[in-house]
Amino acid sequence: MRPRFILLGDSITEESFSPAGGWGAALTSRYARKADVVLRGFSGYNTRWALFLLSRLFPAGSEDTPALVTIFFGANDAALPDGSHKRQYVPLPEYKENLLKIISSVKSLSKDTLIVLITPPPVDEATLQVAAWKFFGARPEDASPRKNEITGHYAKACVEVAREAEVPVIDLWTCMQEQPGWQTSYLSDGLHLTPEGNGVVFEKLVEVLNKKGLSFEAMKWDFPEHGDVNAENPAKTSW
Amino acid sequence: MRPRFILLGDSITEESFSPAGGWGAALTSRYARKADVVLRGFSGYNTRWALFLLSRLFPAGSEDTPALVTIFFGANDAALPDGSHKRQYVPLPEYKENLLKIISSVKSLSKDTLIVLITPPPVDEATLQVAAWKFFGARPEDASPRKNEITGHYAKACVEVAREAEVPVIDLWTCMQEQPGWQTSYLSDGLHLTPEGNGVVFEKLVEVLNKKGLSFEAMKWDFPEHGDVNAENPAKTSW
Repeated sequence: MRPRFILLGDSITEESFSPAGGWGAALTSRYARKADVVLRGFSGYNTRWALFLLSRLFPAGSEDTPALVTIFFGANDAALPDGSHKRQYVPLPEYKENLLKIISSVKSLSKDTLIVLITPPPVDEATLQVAAWKFFGARPEDASPRKNEITGHYAKACVEVAREAEVPVIDLWTCMQEQPGWQTSYLSDGLHLTPEGNGVVFEKLVEVLNKKGLSFEAMKWDFPEHGDVNAENPAKTSW
Repeated sequence: MRPRFILLGDSITEESFSPAGGWGAALTSRYARKADVVLRGFSGYNTRWALFLLSRLFPAGSEDTPALVTIFFGANDAALPDGSHKRQYVPLPEYKENLLKIISSVKSLSKDTLIVLITPPPVDEATLQVAAWKFFGARPEDASPRKNEITGHYAKACVEVAREAEVPVIDLWTCMQEQPGWQTSYLSDGLHLTPEGNGVVFEKLVEVLNKKGLSFEAMKWDFPEHGDVNAENPAKTSW
């Protein structure tokens, strides 16, 4: 069995194999022949709903434990409690508790699984407001369904959970805003990622994997490279 | 368990999650939430070497049978027996036998698995010769390591195997050459696929899946769409 990398999250994970340079596809390509990337992105989900997935995603007693689980929620939890997406809203303290429960669920299977938290990316309110109007029929005068400052509180909470649980974290909300023009270079509709935004997730994740013993180079080939096949007598190859 | 789509082949499969619009990534994106796409591309492999993978890819007695297996070999088998890539060469009759053995291996697990053969794409000899010179140091006066006419024999043999084994086939070699300018629009280096070439594989494969009961619409969601979650009382959702 090849080691498995499970990508758990919301639409930003679900869309990570989009033709426009998705970070999940890039990870699959990078780790081809060495790891299987398993897409478990659930568009629209928040951490409260994600809890109902855990018993099937990480069944108790399973010996088929993943090498890596990325946990990438918060963009929906941070919906405004009185906005058009209020059904997705999860209060900040509950968001933290839920993240801890997800982490515990993974850790209960194996201490060897690398868990990486990813904070929600920043929100470009102006663009998101236009998108809300175009796609969901929200009136232009309505507030954007998300506020960057609020999403920032969830990102900060995610970083705190990572510290508490002693797992690595990628603080997308902070690092993306360090780049001038992040609103359009990294975000396609004020919330989801452009190819460049996907590239940031991929690069940051590979940095973590390299540090934590899951670099491509450190992992074993599943079946030999073609140059190592004994062409004269293939049966003598170390299959 | 989500249904699994296994993509078995050589480098044209292994590279199918490349950032430039790979067909494997597109398939993963299309079937997100419904099927897991498993990459089993082996750069440089021919059908002779692929036989050594079968007992581990499709272990006898396994009940975890895939919903789909694509078998996409031939580009390496068709290397010239006296050319710079001769170690990859497999004679035409053996290529056919090997494809039949791979098909039998999948069928022995389950009659319900959809098997789709894919022929090698055409070869642009002029471009491939330059690539061979640039990357492998072949002298410019050396023959291209592959000939389009020869690869065409393998493609025809692949179509014959599909007819004999009664499985669908995508005849890339023929359909790509029906498009003027295929040499550069579909091929990046005379052998591997451009984003447009990847798009052809994806479209043709989705056509087959749609006809054979594996359309996205015909498959079940793994966990409900977020709009079907009971937000007031999530536990009452049909998880």
